[in-house]
Parts: sequence; C-alpha cells; structure tokens
Amino acid sequence: MSVPEALTALEKILGDRLSRSKSDLDLHGRNETYFPYAPPDAVAYPLTTREVAQMAQICSAHGCPLTGWGAGTSLEGHALAIRGGISVDFSRMNRVLEVNPQDMDCVVQPGLTREELNRELRATGLFFPVDPGANASLGGMASTRASGTTAVRYGTMRDNVLGLEVVLADGRVIRTGTRARKSAAGYDLTGLFVGAEGTLGLITELTLKLRGQPEAVSAAVCAFDEIGPAVETVIETIQMGIPMARIEFVDAATAAAVNAYAGASFPELPHLMVEFHGSEAGVAEQAETFGAIVADHGGKGFDWSSRPEERSALWTIRHNAYYACLASRKGATAMVTDLCVPISRLAEAVEETRADIAAATIPGPILGHVGDGNFHAILLVEPDNAAELEEAKRLSHRMVERALRMGGTATGEHGIGMGKLDYMQDEHGDAWDVMGQIKRALDPGGVMNPGKMVRGA
Amino acid sequence: MSVPEALTALEKILGDRLSRSKSDLDLHGRNETYFPYAPPDAVAYPLTTREVAQMAQICSAHGCPLTGWGAGTSLEGHALAIRGGISVDFSRMNRVLEVNPQDMDCVVQPGLTREELNRELRATGLFFPVDPGANASLGGMASTRASGTTAVRYGTMRDNVLGLEVVLADGRVIRTGTRARKSAAGYDLTGLFVGAEGTLGLITELTLKLRGQPEAVSAAVCAFDEIGPAVETVIETIQMGIPMARIEFVDAATAAAVNAYAGASFPELPHLMVEFHGSEAGVAEQAETFGAIVADHGGKGFDWSSRPEERSALWTIRHNAYYACLASRKGATAMVTDLCVPISRLAEAVEETRADIAAATIPGPILGHVGDGNFHAILLVEPDNAAELEEAKRLSHRMVERALRMGGTATGEHGIGMGKLDYMQDEHGDAWDVMGQIKRALDPGGVMNPGKMVRGA
Repeated sequence: MSVPEALTALEKILGDRLSRSKSDLDLHGRNETYFPYAPPDAVAYPLTTREVAQMAQICSAHGCPLTGWGAGTSLEGHALAIRGGISVDFSRMNRVLEVNPQDMDCVVQPGLTREELNRELRATGLFFPVDPGANASLGGMASTRASGTTAVRYGTMRDNVLGLEVVLADGRVIRTGTRARKSAAGYDLTGLFVGAEGTLGLITELTLKLRGQPEAVSAAVCAFDEIGPAVETVIETIQMGIPMARIEFVDAATAAAVNAYAGASFPELPHLMVEFHGSEAGVAEQAETFGAIVADHGGKGFDWSSRPEERSALWTIRHNAYYACLASRKGATAMVTDLCVPISRLAEAVEETRADIAAATIPGPILGHVGDGNFHAILLVEPDNAAELEEAKRLSHRMVERALRMGGTATGEHGIGMGKLDYMQDEHGDAWDVMGQIKRALDPGGVMNPGKMVRGA
Repeated sequence: MSVPEALTALEKILGDRLSRSKSDLDLHGRNETYFPYAPPDAVAYPLTTREVAQMAQICSAHGCPLTGWGAGTSLEGHALAIRGGISVDFSRMNRVLEVNPQDMDCVVQPGLTREELNRELRATGLFFPVDPGANASLGGMASTRASGTTAVRYGTMRDNVLGLEVVLADGRVIRTGTRARKSAAGYDLTGLFVGAEGTLGLITELTLKLRGQPEAVSAAVCAFDEIGPAVETVIETIQMGIPMARIEFVDAATAAAVNAYAGASFPELPHLMVEFHGSEAGVAEQAETFGAIVADHGGKGFDWSSRPEERSALWTIRHNAYYACLASRKGATAMVTDLCVPISRLAEAVEETRADIAAATIPGPILGHVGDGNFHAILLVEPDNAAELEEAKRLSHRMVERALRMGGTATGEHGIGMGKLDYMQDEHGDAWDVMGQIKRALDPGGVMNPGKMVRGA
C-alpha cells in the first residue's frame, strides 16, 4: 500500500495530466459548502476509458484511493478525496459521442455538463430534462442520482440513464444496460451505479434518454397566505394528473430575499412557481385547471404566461434563489439541507422546520421541489463561526429526524457524501449492511471513493 | 446439506402449510410454456414475513433451495424449482396493507394479483397501471420486472415500485426505499431486487406507486399495408411527445387469428391499437394528432372512440390475441419470444423476424408493445414434437441474436428464467460476472432460486 508508488506508475501513463500543482490540489480539495479542505495527493485528467482502467489497476495494486470529480458542484462533499489519493477529474472526457434522434437517446462522456449537452441538442428538437440548478457534469449527476426542478415530470437520473460504461476497482470495463427502452435481462446494474457516488466504480460513458422539446411552455406564479394551502394545492394538482413540468415552492423569507437580490416585487408570502409543457391547447388547459385549484385554496395573483421572456425571468429568479438567500445575510456561507417526505406529510414537515428555524439563532429560507415532497432550507452561517455551524447542523439533524419519522428519506437529491453518512443506519437498518456487502464484493480493496457511503468505509 | 432435514424443520413451523401432496407438487412443477415438468420437494404457504425469514434460516442451514411462486404466469420458467427444495407459494400473503390516497401509493403483500389490487382501488379514483396481460401476482411482477401494454406511458415495475421488504438467504429482513417519491440515500436496492427473479431474496411486501384514473380514455385502431409505415407512425408519435397510454402492434397473421377466434372483422393487415388517457379535451387532441400521423403514413380505417364498451372490446381482443393465435393452430402449444430493440431498428427487426418465420416450418404471429421497441412472436408447435420445438428454439435464438446485433436486449419483459440464461454472456459480457459477484455476496450458499440468472448458478 503506497500512494507514492502509485503516483510514479500513474505518471508514466498520464504524463503532465497527473498534476500535483498547488492550484489543482486546492481546487479539488475545496467544496461548495461547509466541509473542511481536503486535498488529494494528485489530480488526474484522463482522456480515455482505457486510461481510467489502467489507473484503477495501478491504484488497486497500490491501495491508492480514486475519487471521481465532475464539475465540483455537489453539496455533500462527495468528491472530496478525504483519504487522499487521486482526484479523477473528468473535465477532458466531455464529448457527445452519439445523438440518435429517432431513438431519442444520446451517448456522452461523464465530464460533459448538462448545459453543454443541451446546447449541442438545440437544433435537434430534443433536450435532456434533468435540471439540478447547477451546471453539473452528467457523470456527477448520475453518480449522485441528481434530480431538481423537473423531476416531477421527467424523473431523476435514475429514470433517465439507459446505460453506463463503468471502470471497476480491478480495472475491468463493463457496460450496463442497452439502448433498448426497457429490459428484463438480469440485475439492474445501471440502477446500482446511478447514485453509488463513485464508491463501486467510475462512470466513463453514459447513454441518456432525451425528450422532445415541448411545442408550448407556459409558466405561472401565485402566492398564498399560509404554507398549508400551498401544499394542498400541490397535492390536488398531482392527484388530478396534471402533468406539471415544474412545481416549486418558495417561502416568504425566500420571496423577500429574491426581491432584495433581483429587484423583484413578490409579496412576502409563500409562493408556488409552476411550468407546463405540452401542446398549445394542452398547456392552456393545464394552466386553467391549475388556476382553478389555486383559487379553491385561496391562492392569489395567479397569472400564467407563455411568453419566453417572462418564463425565463421566472426561472432565473428560482435558480438564483440560492444566491439571493446567500446575499440576504452579508458575508454568510450556506449549509443547504435536503429532505424528502411522502407528500401528505409535506405541509407538516415544512411548518415544523419553519418553526424550528424561527426559534434558532440563524436564518434559513425554505424552498423546494414540492411536487416530489422534496425541500431545502438554506441555513445561513458566518464563515468560521463554529457556534453557528453547530446550530445549522442541529437544525439539519432535526430535519432528517423529521423526514425519517414521517416515512421519508434523509436526502431527496443531494446524496450522502460526507454530510449524511451518520443517517444511513437510521434510514436503512440492516439494508445498510447489504450495501456494505455489495461494496466489498465489487471493491474489496476499498479504493473507490473510500470513507463514503458504507459502514466503516 | 439435506433437504429431508430441512423439510422436518419446516414442518414444525408451517404444519400442514408445508404440502407434499401430488396435486401441489404437480401444480408447482408445471409452467405456462415449454419447459419440462420440474416439481419441488414440497410447497410452502407462508402467512407472514416472520415465517418466510424462519424458512430462509432453516433452508440456508440445510442447503435447501427456496424458489418463490406467485401466480405461475411467467413465460420463462422462473418459478420452477429445478434443483428441488421448496416452492414458496405466496398466495396466502395476498392482502392490501395500506392505501394512501394523498400520496398515491399503497403497501401490499406479494401474493396479491394486479386485478385484485385494481378491484380494491376502484372506489379511490386510483389504479395500478402496470399491465402484463396475465393476472400475475405483484410479487412476481416485481421479481421479473414485468411491463406490458401500458409501459410506454406509465413505465415498468422498475418505475412503479417505491420500496420493498425482502427476506434474505440468511433470514435477515430488510426494507428498501421509503414512501418518499425520490431519494439519493445510498445504493438503489429496490431496483436491485426488482428483476432479480428471486435469486437475491424473497419479496414479502411491496410499496407501489398508484396513478389517478384518467378523466377520459379513448382508443383507436388502424391498419397499414406494410409493417414499415406502421412503425414509422409509432416513432413519429413518440417523438411528438403524444403521451400514449398504449400503442400496440399486431401483424396480419394475428389479425387473421383474432378474426377467427373472436368473430372480429379486421382487415388481414398489420394494425396499430392505441389508447389515450387524459382530460376530455386532451384525449380528443391526442387522437386528432395521432390520426394525422397515421394518415401521413398511409394508415387506413383510423377511428377513435371514447365509448367504454368499444374500448373494452378492443383491449379484450388485444389481450386475447395470445389465445387467438394459440387457437389458430389446433392443439398447438406456444413458445412466446420476447425481445426489445432501439425503436429506430424496430421495423427492420420485425421484418427480418417475419421473413425468418415465413421460411420456417411452424407459424408464428407477431405482436408487441411497439412504443417501447418490444415485440413477441407466438411460435406455435405441436406438443411433444421435438423437431418443431427445436425449430421454435432456432427462430427464438435468431431473434435474440438480431436484438443484440441491433443494440437491444434478449428480453424486454419476460425475463431470463430458464429460457434466456444462455444469452447473458452475449448481452452483458463482464457485467454478467458482476451480477455473479453480487449474488455470491448476498446468497453465498446459493439457496435462492438456484440454477437461475448467474453463471454456473
């Protein structure tokens, strides 16, 4: 077991694409949120699957950790090489390999970002729908089972990855899935690697489902006096089968932050922001039906628009809500929580969280993808203020306890990484041990993103 | 390793719910298709998860195989206890445990059939959409990753199981998933057990997604002179994003068989049969748009109806197509093939298969769920005619070769069972070994449905 020996062997393959520069180590040792600086021993920039396979063989032989790195946008420290070793930066494996318009699928490399993919697709009439907000890499999105605003209509990465090429710890290269839309041929390995956070292997290629760009899109926003009726509106909308493309909640504090940040003029109340995709007549009908449900629940100011500039403004606001919240407390850094509950418990979960934060010493606007029962608090702390960070962790801890008590999950979309490992036992019980058995079967030496996901990792 | 000792211990727990009667062994030793009679040593009828867990402990201790049995409707011999041991018949674990209308989910036992569930749901306005044709058990449907006519709209079992309770080989009882709609918390064990055909554990409880019964339903049928334009119609329809609830293909031979069997009067040509779900205005718009695509491709006789009795007649015909094809050759038994290809290759795959069957010594009408690229040939052979069975196997073999050559899968929905094990290497390569590693990690003694799914099983 020797990282230096691994580095020597890796350098022979990668040359100057194995970097130990301070700037590279710094970049890959930092994260989007509150986890401490944890630099790898080196950063590798592979160009091919073959190189990744060679890296895995070398690193397995020398017990040197391999931790994948996409765009560095994850929120739970997944990509930090906390046991040292190699940060495998996929930014130079970022090509679109195939687009198959008739089959509505594409084959891409893991370092490609979702915005880059959608730019390439623009002329085809197709798009890739999963939208976590950040311009994440597609390999990272698959590894963390990302979702976001459009999951209520188009599903998460679980639903949109048809197949993978994966390099295993021992250097074998496997292909999971096919380009057929469904299969009953064996264990669902695609589903196993999606969400495995790089602990079972490194994704080197993805086959993704694409969707047709909708003929028409309309968007709407409306305000409610209380959280309860906003959530009731969501439940009834989902039950009616209205195929919402997005249905987002922001609380009064978020509305206020957005007003201050973006010069908007939302009433300082809970809001729903929604989007409809379909035919011209279809989105009109959806908007009318949704509007009637909003009115039944006392929602105010409902207005819908299919003008692109108005829609775009609305979603720019929603996507910037994180930055608006950050800016609402000068100099603050954020811990962004993430939980998901059965939708019948959503109002209760949001209200309890709201009250808990109101009684705390730090602010925490709430917003989320409520069509899925998924929401976040953006807990705003002073950097280097240990007491505030502890307070944020306590609030987050109680959110997770609340989610599990209500039959939900510790994380709807951000994943386990470093921040949620302590909840795996509570959420999964003996099933967590089964995950450990699978990990040990596929990565007996523990070189794939060690310290993450499984017990005693 | 002793099956008799296991039986003695099991009898103490189960009493007369462990049966060795000839009729029970006969029933559980037979299958819906051509695999030889393979009776278990005994049939168990557990009532509780605890009993199943005790059975697993006893059987693991004595090396006695455990093979799950739902409704016995599978088509690849999955449920045959080919190494003897216990056939675990879940027919007495068939209760609906919970229906949560607000969350649109339910919790059921594995022996409940899909028709029983939908009867119980009728008053709620909800339904369970996966429809493989046969009135299969929900545990069996999950274990085989069943799909069927509605998968194009509502997905397969992969997409409709939120969580499971599973008894592992060593008797541990685990829960996978939660009632939250999505989660990023750890490996997707739910997805791993769905489609594992009982080789990793026995499913004792399922949490299923439900859908709202559509406000309006309409159905249509149309004929084409050739297969090509029928398939082109399907591709264009999917690309337009028309949310088809069903889009089924039957060939001219199937149309003829249905005419003879059900007194129908379809032209003896390739047909598409489709169904639309939505609002009144929505289904009308969908039907008009689809009708225009049909006309563009020279389809004939397009007519749509939202009258329940006409729709019902249409789908009764489609669901009885299997029996109509069987009846088209007196005294015949059927080998039902199943493959799935990228939709761009569908016309070619169907045409090649059509030509291959036309040159063979046995008839084989073709029909399928073409919105997914999935189709079947119903190869009609005389019982006990070894030469014809060999001919059917050769045709099926070439269908699989064709599917794999075209980037598809050896089975879209029927699963591996006994019939497709020989194709796992060709389809999955080294990924098949990974499945074996997972199997050995979770079932080191090989008691869970031995002889199936993995290499050297």
